[in-house]
Amino acid sequence: MLSEKLKEYSGITDEALKKLFLPDGITPPHMQEVMSYSVMAGGKRLRPALVLAACETLGGDRQRALPFACAIELIHTYSLIHDDMPCIDNDTMRRGRPTSHVMFDEQRALLAGDALLSYAFEIMLDAVVSAGEQDRAAAAAAAKAIADAAGTRAMVAGQWQDVLSEGKQISPQELEYIHIHKTADMIRGAVKAGALIAGAGEEELTCFDEYARRIGLAFQIADDILDVVGDAGKLGKNTGSDAADNKVTYVSLHGLEESRRISRELIQQACRIIKNMDASGFFTELAHFIIERVN
Amino acid sequence: MLSEKLKEYSGITDEALKKLFLPDGITPPHMQEVMSYSVMAGGKRLRPALVLAACETLGGDRQRALPFACAIELIHTYSLIHDDMPCIDNDTMRRGRPTSHVMFDEQRALLAGDALLSYAFEIMLDAVVSAGEQDRAAAAAAAKAIADAAGTRAMVAGQWQDVLSEGKQISPQELEYIHIHKTADMIRGAVKAGALIAGAGEEELTCFDEYARRIGLAFQIADDILDVVGDAGKLGKNTGSDAADNKVTYVSLHGLEESRRISRELIQQACRIIKNMDASGFFTELAHFIIERVN
Repeated sequence: MLSEKLKEYSGITDEALKKLFLPDGITPPHMQEVMSYSVMAGGKRLRPALVLAACETLGGDRQRALPFACAIELIHTYSLIHDDMPCIDNDTMRRGRPTSHVMFDEQRALLAGDALLSYAFEIMLDAVVSAGEQDRAAAAAAAKAIADAAGTRAMVAGQWQDVLSEGKQISPQELEYIHIHKTADMIRGAVKAGALIAGAGEEELTCFDEYARRIGLAFQIADDILDVVGDAGKLGKNTGSDAADNKVTYVSLHGLEESRRISRELIQQACRIIKNMDASGFFTELAHFIIERVN
Repeated sequence: MLSEKLKEYSGITDEALKKLFLPDGITPPHMQEVMSYSVMAGGKRLRPALVLAACETLGGDRQRALPFACAIELIHTYSLIHDDMPCIDNDTMRRGRPTSHVMFDEQRALLAGDALLSYAFEIMLDAVVSAGEQDRAAAAAAAKAIADAAGTRAMVAGQWQDVLSEGKQISPQELEYIHIHKTADMIRGAVKAGALIAGAGEEELTCFDEYARRIGLAFQIADDILDVVGDAGKLGKNTGSDAADNKVTYVSLHGLEESRRISRELIQQACRIIKNMDASGFFTELAHFIIERVN
């Protein structure tokens, strides 16, 4: 059930993403090639799935949510390309393929990342401007939710603190700041954007946000656990990193078993929170799926 | 008259920009410091001035245009930080100060650039969402104009082709693509955003765009000329570049005198186009100012 639904969402998303890189006579074709190399590298499309599922579960039209699903995936991809660069994590492989700066070069990777972030906003603002009068406010609010999730009080802030924490002893509070902002905020932005497109009210938005915060944090804790116990099937970065060994993680701060327990506890809380809004069971199953790999 | 007006606009812009970097309890203070180091480095604020002037000349409220004026300056600044990085132009000085990656380091410069681009959209989308019902469509259109100007069919595309042209013999058409997209498109985006906030119609928008395209191109040609004849007062990059000597420019393609002639011709055309909409004379004076340094 979950895997079928995820497959359906990623199919819709992939089809829409591919169309974003068709020749248009203006965008440099080689730039499109470098951008799409990373976008079409076989990600799980978790964030787009959350945009589409949040919209559908509240009775919204998923076609209207699709530009926002694509945009958040482009933003996620830009963050990975820049994160992998030599001056940050110096990762050479991601998802079983050479990273962008290895496959092409550093200047192309830097600019392709910039182009993906810019393109995400071109796409969302196009959706806002071309929306009908009665849909425009919701579309603008969804674009703002994603801008905020990617922005200076969220993902970039988490990324900044993560990079600067390298080689330092940081507190559990500082690690939580990094995990929440670097990882959970984009999960929160995804469900918020989808819910807003469907016209969610305050109560529904709060409920989704409390759910997303917990699964986002559990997702990052699971990632920390996989860095220690290893996982051939791990889809994120897994080789060549200069930085990974040198950072405080949930496991190094709390130990392996306590990290597992915290992640399970977060998932249980998330499922309780979402229960009444999860008629199809998608969000509950997804929550369990997130920590399945490590428990 | 022009210098007074430019001073007034840059004063308003600087005041608003400073407020964007006040401590907020969430954004990492050191990230704000690195971002604002480049933003507050004493730029001419040409793009914000064009946003504010286009809005005012059509009878719009400049307070409503101010978030867009700030956003375009943040985007301009991010593009300079990334452009200066070792993997692209490897510039060590800009506006008389060490560039961001020299003053801090490469990872901070990369992330501060990412943060500035993200922040620009946070600010614009906040303005769109908090606009009154009757102003929202204009605010969304202004945000889209700036997204398009910075985006994959505009500034980033020009930057991409510029970087990849290094060391290559390119045609006049290819050079014009680079100059139009890398430089003129953000000038066009600035006047378009300001005009849209003031409720401009199609005819006014076309007129402003034709004007901005010409002064933007002349601005870049003047920059090419200054690279050759030198200029102690040049505010852009002027030392330490690995790339500058290795690129085709208007001067290397057309010669110095012909480049001067083309820039004068463009400015004359721009002034004729804007004449009937330039009651205060600001746009005419500005056009002349752009090539004053090289003629």
